[in-house]
Amino acid sequence: MSSLHQLKEYYLKNKDKILSDYFDFLRFPSISADPAYASHTNATANWLKGALERAGFLVQKWETEGAPILFGEINSKKDKTLLLYTHYDVQPVDPLDLWLSPPFEPTLRHGEVYARGASDDKGETFYTLSAINGLLHHLKTLPINIKWIIEGEEESGSTQLSKILKSKEKEIAADYLIVIDSGLLTKDRPAISFGVRGICSMTLTLTGSNSDLHSGSHGGIVYNPNRALVELLASLHDTSGRVTIDGFYDDVKDISDDEKRELFLDFDDAAFEKSFLAKANGGEKGYSPSESAWLRPTLEINGLSGGYSGKGFKTVIPATACAKISCRLVPNQDADKIAQLVKNHLLSHVKEGIRASVEIHSGGNAFRSPVHSPLATTMRSALEEVFQAPCQNILMGGSIPIISQLANHSHAETLLFGMGLPDDNVHAPNEHFGLDRFERGYLSIANIVLYLGKLAKNI
Amino acid sequence: MSSLHQLKEYYLKNKDKILSDYFDFLRFPSISADPAYASHTNATANWLKGALERAGFLVQKWETEGAPILFGEINSKKDKTLLLYTHYDVQPVDPLDLWLSPPFEPTLRHGEVYARGASDDKGETFYTLSAINGLLHHLKTLPINIKWIIEGEEESGSTQLSKILKSKEKEIAADYLIVIDSGLLTKDRPAISFGVRGICSMTLTLTGSNSDLHSGSHGGIVYNPNRALVELLASLHDTSGRVTIDGFYDDVKDISDDEKRELFLDFDDAAFEKSFLAKANGGEKGYSPSESAWLRPTLEINGLSGGYSGKGFKTVIPATACAKISCRLVPNQDADKIAQLVKNHLLSHVKEGIRASVEIHSGGNAFRSPVHSPLATTMRSALEEVFQAPCQNILMGGSIPIISQLANHSHAETLLFGMGLPDDNVHAPNEHFGLDRFERGYLSIANIVLYLGKLAKNI
Repeated sequence: MSSLHQLKEYYLKNKDKILSDYFDFLRFPSISADPAYASHTNATANWLKGALERAGFLVQKWETEGAPILFGEINSKKDKTLLLYTHYDVQPVDPLDLWLSPPFEPTLRHGEVYARGASDDKGETFYTLSAINGLLHHLKTLPINIKWIIEGEEESGSTQLSKILKSKEKEIAADYLIVIDSGLLTKDRPAISFGVRGICSMTLTLTGSNSDLHSGSHGGIVYNPNRALVELLASLHDTSGRVTIDGFYDDVKDISDDEKRELFLDFDDAAFEKSFLAKANGGEKGYSPSESAWLRPTLEINGLSGGYSGKGFKTVIPATACAKISCRLVPNQDADKIAQLVKNHLLSHVKEGIRASVEIHSGGNAFRSPVHSPLATTMRSALEEVFQAPCQNILMGGSIPIISQLANHSHAETLLFGMGLPDDNVHAPNEHFGLDRFERGYLSIANIVLYLGKLAKNI
Repeated sequence: MSSLHQLKEYYLKNKDKILSDYFDFLRFPSISADPAYASHTNATANWLKGALERAGFLVQKWETEGAPILFGEINSKKDKTLLLYTHYDVQPVDPLDLWLSPPFEPTLRHGEVYARGASDDKGETFYTLSAINGLLHHLKTLPINIKWIIEGEEESGSTQLSKILKSKEKEIAADYLIVIDSGLLTKDRPAISFGVRGICSMTLTLTGSNSDLHSGSHGGIVYNPNRALVELLASLHDTSGRVTIDGFYDDVKDISDDEKRELFLDFDDAAFEKSFLAKANGGEKGYSPSESAWLRPTLEINGLSGGYSGKGFKTVIPATACAKISCRLVPNQDADKIAQLVKNHLLSHVKEGIRASVEIHSGGNAFRSPVHSPLATTMRSALEEVFQAPCQNILMGGSIPIISQLANHSHAETLLFGMGLPDDNVHAPNEHFGLDRFERGYLSIANIVLYLGKLAKNI
C-alpha cells in the first residue's frame, strides 16, 4: 500500500515536469463563452486527451456541436467505480488591462501561479491527473475503477454535455461522483462542498430610437434607454435587499436548524474586508453573509452597457442599453420557471415607448447532498489525514448546472471538492492558484482514492 | 454686385472640385475627445489652413496644449467686421459596427454624404469656405471684413479656445458673430438659432471590491457596484421626469409669454416618431417636446458600463461600475454650480460601503440673443431670399459652451446658423449631410455676407 509519504516523494521528484505540463495546459485560451475561441478549445481537448492517455486512461473524445467532451477510464477490475468531473474551459479575460501578467502566459509570483484557469478549473484538473500518475507509479493498479468526464463548456452552461448525458448512462455509471470544481474557506482547513446553487441568466436589451441621438437636440424629447434601464433594474430589489419579482421566493424553503448545525456557517467579516476591500453588506436583511451566499437565492446585474464609456465624453442618447442579469437559486427552485418570472417582470415593467427583449441563456437547478453518506465520511477521513485538521462541511454559492444531471445519470453518490480559495480571483483579472495548494490537492485526491479503495474492501 | 444667380453658377461650375475637397476634409479622423487622435487633429488643422490661405485668408495657427486653433482674416478695409465660428473636430465614432460605410471614408448615397463630421461641423465649415471663394471670384473684394475662428475642441468642451480668448480680444473684435454650427427644423424652411443650452458633464465611478468577484461565491455577500449604480441613477428623476437634485431648478426662470410668441415651438410628434421610431415622451410633465428641449434643463445618462457586456455570459460582480452624466442648462443657470450640485448629490447618496468618485468635465453656460437685432433682421431677409420661405426663430437644445465667451470677447452681436437637420445622426453612427443643403448653405452664407454689406452701407 502506498503511503502519503511515498506519494509526496513522487510529487517532489517529478515536480518540474508536472508544473511544466500544467503551465502548457494554462497557455491554451480555452474560452467557451466566445465562439471565436472554438479552435483553441478543441486544441486544448486534444492536448489533454494525450496527457490522459499517457497516464493510462482509455480516452473517448465525444464530439459535439460545441466543445468536445473527454471521457477517460481506467478499469482496475474492482467492484466499485469513482467518477470524476472537471472542466478544461475557462472564463473570458476582460478587462484585460487589469491583468498584471498576460492571462494565458502563466507567471509564478510569490508561490502563486497567475493565469486564467490557474484555479478554475485547470489547476484542479491537473493536480488530479498528477495524483492518478502518482498512485499508478507506486501501486501499478488503482484500488478502485476510475472514470473521468472533462468537459469544455462548464463556464457557458454545459449545453453539450447536458444534451448527451442520458445517452451515456452506461459509460458514466458509478458508485461515487466527485466534482472537482469547488474550494476551501481557508488554506489549512479541508472542506467538502455538499451543494451548489442553481442559476438562470439572461441578456436584457432596451431599445428607444432607431439610432443614437444627440443628447442636446433630443435630451428632453425621447426617453433615454439608459434611464429606462437603470429605473427598471433599480426596482428589482427593495431596501432590505429582497428581490421584488412576484413569486421569486415562492418555492424557497426556510433554512432548517439541522442545516445550520451541520454546515460551517461562520463568516469572518474582517478577513473578507481585508481581502477584497469591500464590506459584506450586500445580502438580504436578516441573513448572515454565508446564509445569503449559500442558502438564499440572489439576483445580480453582471453587466451594464449603454452609450459612450470611453475616455472623455460623448453627448449621446444611445439607441439601446443592455444588461446581463443572473439569479442564483436554492433547492426546490426551478431555473426555467425563475428565468420566465424574471423575463416577464422585465418585459412588463419597462417604460412605455421603450422596446424590451430578453434572451434567456442556459441554466440549471441547485444540487444538495447529505453530509453523512459513506462517501462523505470516507472523504472527510482522507482529507483530515492530509491536512491534519478537521474538515468543514460547506456549500458553494456558485453553480455547476450540470451537477444534478451528472448525479442522476451516473446514479452515484455525489460530492464536491476543490482547492480553490475565495480570493483566487476566479472569473476575474489575475486569477491565481498556489503551488502549495496544488501539491495538497494532489495528495488529497490520491488519498481519497486510497480510502475509497479501503471502503470498497470493507463493505 | 454679384447675384444669387452668379453665385449658383460658380458653385455648379466648381462643384466637383468643391466636393472633392470637402471629402478630403472628411477623411481626417479629427476626434478631439480621445488624445490618441492628436496627430490627426493637427494634420486636419494644417490641411484646413492651406485651404483658407488659398481662398485669400491671412491665417494664424494658434498652438495650444491641445488641438491648434485657426484664425483667418480677410481685411476688406470696410467699417464693419463679421466674425465666423466653426470647428474642425468631430465626435468619436463608436459603435463602429453600426456604420453602413466607414466613418472616415465619405460615401454618397441618395444625395447624402455619409461620414463623421459630414454635417457637424465639417459640412458647415466647408460650404462657408466655398461661399467666400464664390463671393471673391465675382466681387474680387468682400463688402465687409471677415474674421474666422475654426477650433479643434468643440466636441470636447473648447478648453483651449476658452483659455486664450481673453488674450485675443483685439484679433477677434467684430460687429457681428455668426456661429455656424446649428440647424434647421425642416429642409425647406430657413431658421436662425437665438440660443443654445448650457452644459455640464461628469464621469461617475463606483467601486465595490478591489477586483471583479465571482457572482456565485460572492453574490449575496458584497453590494454589487452595478446595483449601486442603477439605484443611484434611477433616483435622479421623479415619475414626472423632474430632476430630483436639490437646487437643480433654483435659478431657472419661468417660460415667458414673449418667448412662446417669438419662437417656433410647434413640434410634429408623428414626423419625429417616423424619423426615429421613438416616442417624444421623455420630457417633464407639463412641457411640450420643444419646450423640454429648448427652454428646460435636463439630465441625461450618456454612458453606462460595468461588468461583462460581450457575447454569452460572464457571472461576475465587477469591481467598478461607471456612468457618464450630462445636464443641459438654460439661461441664468451656472454650469459650475450645477456640476457641483450633481456631484455632491451623487457622492452623498451612494450606498454605504461603495466608494464613489466624480470627475467633472469642462462645461459652459447657456446663451441667448434677442430676436429683433439688426443682425437678426438682416439675416432673416437674406435667408428668406435664398429659401423663398419665411424664416423660423428657433433655439438649439444642444450646447456650444464657448459661445458666450466668444460673444463677450468679440463684443459682437451673436447668432447661430446652420444647415443641419434633426435626423442627420450627428454624434451617432451614419452621420450624413445632403448635397442640396450643402449648396443652399453656400448660397445662404454668401447672401448673408452681401446683405450685411448693404446693412453697413446704409448705417
